[in-house]
Amino acid sequence: MNVIQIIGIGGLPIIKTGDNLAELICKAAEKQGTPIQENDVIVITHVVVSRAEGCIVNLDEVVPSPFAKSFAELYAKDPAMVEVVLREAKGIRRMTDGKIITETKHGFVCANSGVDKSNVPGENYVALLPHDPDASAERVKEEIRRLTGCDVAVIISDTHGRPLREGEINVAIGVSGLKPIRDRRGERDLFGYTLRVKQTAVADELASAAELVIGQADEGVPAAIIRGYKFIKSETAKATELIRPKEKELFL
Amino acid sequence: MNVIQIIGIGGLPIIKTGDNLAELICKAAEKQGTPIQENDVIVITHVVVSRAEGCIVNLDEVVPSPFAKSFAELYAKDPAMVEVVLREAKGIRRMTDGKIITETKHGFVCANSGVDKSNVPGENYVALLPHDPDASAERVKEEIRRLTGCDVAVIISDTHGRPLREGEINVAIGVSGLKPIRDRRGERDLFGYTLRVKQTAVADELASAAELVIGQADEGVPAAIIRGYKFIKSETAKATELIRPKEKELFL
Repeated sequence: MNVIQIIGIGGLPIIKTGDNLAELICKAAEKQGTPIQENDVIVITHVVVSRAEGCIVNLDEVVPSPFAKSFAELYAKDPAMVEVVLREAKGIRRMTDGKIITETKHGFVCANSGVDKSNVPGENYVALLPHDPDASAERVKEEIRRLTGCDVAVIISDTHGRPLREGEINVAIGVSGLKPIRDRRGERDLFGYTLRVKQTAVADELASAAELVIGQADEGVPAAIIRGYKFIKSETAKATELIRPKEKELFL
Repeated sequence: MNVIQIIGIGGLPIIKTGDNLAELICKAAEKQGTPIQENDVIVITHVVVSRAEGCIVNLDEVVPSPFAKSFAELYAKDPAMVEVVLREAKGIRRMTDGKIITETKHGFVCANSGVDKSNVPGENYVALLPHDPDASAERVKEEIRRLTGCDVAVIISDTHGRPLREGEINVAIGVSGLKPIRDRRGERDLFGYTLRVKQTAVADELASAAELVIGQADEGVPAAIIRGYKFIKSETAKATELIRPKEKELFL
């Protein structure tokens, strides 16, 4: 029988710049009686990674450009927030009705360049996405190995809106230790038919699964252990593999 | 501590038209020692629902239109398959390079109108999407209640490609008993900040979580129990709420 457990890791302190996030996660997991084990997948919501890495901006110190100011004024937005969103973007996909859909420097297409006002301490602070989420995931993975001796996979997750469908889901913006896409082309189904088009974005599915325990705004569960999922190991895979190159876009 | 279990339900017989799918799922869950419990979420891959409901087409009996024939010839496709895909569509979003992205009669935008050649018995048979997946989910939910006395939520899932990102993920195409979108606007975060934009597509996240145990082509696990997730109950919610109306599209 195939059973997977999703275990929320709670009881962490408020994460501050310079904190050893891996260590705090290992300790919290141990304290609640669910120590990290070999082959666990550890999913971490990006905002605590950003806070630990100091990817935090005080909006009071941001000088907005004239363009940011005029857009903000038109739609009753904070001009400093608009400015930060623009600075984090390498392109604008849509900027209308007060909404800004950008392409981030990493290549993710999302609202507000992933700049997040929630779960950030301080009146007027926002969290940026980590500078290099794959590298962040790798550092956490290596530190967990050093501290526990366990080889795990790490996923950094973010909540993204998406085209065509309502509501946000969690996706992987950083991975280490596992292949984000499971290529099943060539496998056979129950009746011997060879699959021809199946490439499953398992890292996104794992991020979404973890959100089921992380996504309680008031409980302070910034990470989850997914236990019992047989992932395909990789030392080189990156979450940027999940970004579809524009020239391969089928839907837009 | 917040723990969710995802339990694959295996050992079902090959599902045929007219089968009582709910009964077969309940029996299989009991036989493997994990009987269905109150407040479980039962996720079922659509193809077994389609087979039970007779939403199966023998391609040998399909007469393709001249348009289907010419498209199929151009891209070395099966003209009968192209014909079935077109018949299931209420619109074509893109039809190029041998790929067909349609809007199904339900309103889902996906490849090939969701017509599926895998996991269908018979040399030349394909499965259509269920005619009304929300109604299918409701029938299964009611039958599970009758058989076990347990009030559960039911999700019918399908594997969809998506814009912007590579790889497919599982999404909810039918729901019964739970709100597919958890509206968290107005909730407060860890630091007292009121969330303004958070609407989580939990039904899609549950479908993706279930795929982690269902998605083994060769193991015959067509359904999963998700246990321990506190969903918001609803007697009226529909998966069609997850379809974004064109006029609200932000990305395209």
